[in-house]
Amino acid sequence: MRSLRVLGVDPGLTRCGVGVVEGRVGRPLDLVEVGVVRTPAELDLAKRLLRLESALDGLVARLRPDVVAVERVFSQHNVRTVMGTAQASAVAMLVAARHGIEVHQHTPSEVKAAVTGSGRADKAQVAAMVARLLRLDAPPSPADAADALALAICHVWRGGAQNRLAEAVAAAAGTGR
Amino acid sequence: MRSLRVLGVDPGLTRCGVGVVEGRVGRPLDLVEVGVVRTPAELDLAKRLLRLESALDGLVARLRPDVVAVERVFSQHNVRTVMGTAQASAVAMLVAARHGIEVHQHTPSEVKAAVTGSGRADKAQVAAMVARLLRLDAPPSPADAADALALAICHVWRGGAQNRLAEAVAAAAGTGR
Repeated sequence: MRSLRVLGVDPGLTRCGVGVVEGRVGRPLDLVEVGVVRTPAELDLAKRLLRLESALDGLVARLRPDVVAVERVFSQHNVRTVMGTAQASAVAMLVAARHGIEVHQHTPSEVKAAVTGSGRADKAQVAAMVARLLRLDAPPSPADAADALALAICHVWRGGAQNRLAEAVAAAAGTGR
Repeated sequence: MRSLRVLGVDPGLTRCGVGVVEGRVGRPLDLVEVGVVRTPAELDLAKRLLRLESALDGLVARLRPDVVAVERVFSQHNVRTVMGTAQASAVAMLVAARHGIEVHQHTPSEVKAAVTGSGRADKAQVAAMVARLLRLDAPPSPADAADALALAICHVWRGGAQNRLAEAVAAAAGTGR
């Protein structure tokens, strides 16, 4: 099975975490790039969305991920920030779709469970595991950057499992079993 | 004061109402175009956003509104649909910003108050007033289309009032008063 290059996006307007990881199930993962896209709060919403789009578009064009993994936003979360988060996630999905790149969403608890073994792990634990898995000297900061990498790692592992299943089904169908 | 051409957008993924109205305060309003953009629920979210973007982009390029007025989404509303609504509104704002068109948001109660005199008017009353103000034979349907036109009308009137104030201030400043 070939390696997957995954861009994880922890959506937000003030800070949008972006992290690119390459790897496959059962092999050490590689960090490709990590960062945070910020848009100024004093700009109006439409212009902030446009700035975010332009930054994500540049990143996708330059790093060419196979998959974009976006945190699935729930409206039950923080009511004050959920609209901005939903709107930022829409921009990320739109950019991916425009580049013909597959988009997958993972819930925060799926991501935490994937990297720490517990769906209720705290941010520090997630960041520590991200650093360990990617062999970094220190946990990535800010938290949004670490969360974006955790999303990408989660997708490599979960997507990998889904791909293996699909390959097994295809192989079984091919051999007429 | 010159006429404004306003595209009203009632954001949604399943049905996104779009209505273009031209006019100015104190004059009869003209309907330019009205419709609904639909995206299939069986498509994945990223592709639905891309379809919506492409439809809105075509509309804006063809009709060249001066302003895009989008319904302001509140997270308190229907929790099941609010995420899709927020994401669709992000697409509308993004398209406008990319074309360099001003974006304004109005709340549902501002819109209802503008066209019916009451912030708590029901959908039928809004549709009936939209038909009357635009001299249509029947209320526009579906409701999303009528709501989009109501948004555009609201903006012509509220935006008009804001413009008059700005002009008055500029004139007063200009004459040294």
